[in-house]
Amino acid sequence: MATIRRIHKITDEKFLNMYILEGEKKTGAPMRYQLASRAGRVEDLKMKSQKKDADAVIVYALYAGEEAFDSKDEAACQSLRESADLRVVMVRQYRAAVDSFVYELPAGLVDPGEDMRQAAARETFEETGLKLDILDVDPIFEKARFTTIGMTDENNGIVYGYAYGLPDTAHEEDSEEIEVILADRKRVREILAKGKVSMPTAYQLMHFLGEGDPFAFLS
Amino acid sequence: MATIRRIHKITDEKFLNMYILEGEKKTGAPMRYQLASRAGRVEDLKMKSQKKDADAVIVYALYAGEEAFDSKDEAACQSLRESADLRVVMVRQYRAAVDSFVYELPAGLVDPGEDMRQAAARETFEETGLKLDILDVDPIFEKARFTTIGMTDENNGIVYGYAYGLPDTAHEEDSEEIEVILADRKRVREILAKGKVSMPTAYQLMHFLGEGDPFAFLS
Repeated sequence: MATIRRIHKITDEKFLNMYILEGEKKTGAPMRYQLASRAGRVEDLKMKSQKKDADAVIVYALYAGEEAFDSKDEAACQSLRESADLRVVMVRQYRAAVDSFVYELPAGLVDPGEDMRQAAARETFEETGLKLDILDVDPIFEKARFTTIGMTDENNGIVYGYAYGLPDTAHEEDSEEIEVILADRKRVREILAKGKVSMPTAYQLMHFLGEGDPFAFLS
Repeated sequence: MATIRRIHKITDEKFLNMYILEGEKKTGAPMRYQLASRAGRVEDLKMKSQKKDADAVIVYALYAGEEAFDSKDEAACQSLRESADLRVVMVRQYRAAVDSFVYELPAGLVDPGEDMRQAAARETFEETGLKLDILDVDPIFEKARFTTIGMTDENNGIVYGYAYGLPDTAHEEDSEEIEVILADRKRVREILAKGKVSMPTAYQLMHFLGEGDPFAFLS
């Protein structure tokens, strides 16, 4: 396999940096590879730290209404998932990377000291004003995955659940511009057809579009 | 909304570069944003070019055996999708970004002059030795989506189909180190539980894991 012999950090930015990996390909030919990473130092790159926890978390949540909701109440969950008016919690937010608004599931970086589930609940509240009741699922559905391994070592986990309360964006950060969208299947289809959408959002929403249980794949 | 006033390209690399976006947040406070992009010039950034075609394509293909297979043969497709031994086409390949092997669906950049489907067929053949018979699906399932919008303007499309022939990796590029894996559900579950897996791969495989039709969500 290829051998990485030297790693240079060639930018000095706050949130994202570029690293150059030098070494040899499997053939012995020289390798020069560009890596964008949220790691602030070479030793924090995933290949050095072997960190497996999620850098960020994405929340796929069904909207359960204004009142407190308990995912342990199986009859209520089933009734909700079978409802003709079922809605999924989405946000539409300004993204500097494309200088426009993008449709996404609620998501955000896991803060130091937080686990993925704490981050999911915090981000859901900050971005939408909603409380999150998180599902226990087989870890294969939630563990951190590399978002785009050809250019970065970033990974993201997913948390699934039911969100309840009144949507509001009073809690968003200064740098955020967010609209909360409680989208039914018709709206989701329109968004996927016409909107700018993030990949994890589009992929998770493929489970929401059909007539069946939008969490069926988790069982 | 935020205003971007200046864009600086601060690296000069071949495949990936870092751009700094300067301007003001919605509040008027200064904004400095880091963007990693495959664009070689400022005018090629998505926010400038408004390019909507996929930069890269991912292939979710069921393995249809050694003989030529035609997705127009509905009985053959249904029989395959209901088979207890159904397998999905995967690769395990060296990724410099994490200096280790990662499980993925076949994927790759769309070359100049190619469309997403041509790239899908070419990449599938180069990475696995297999031919690809591509499905016609509602565009909402295949159109290009932003892979990780917090750090890059990269987007990826998906192509769905049936792959057939004998797996071999004689066609991989010098820089590639690939093992072809025709994974049944048990193997996919093991990979998702224990392996390093890319996000689009993990998310698409959520449709493969259950007992039902792995393409059911497309209809």
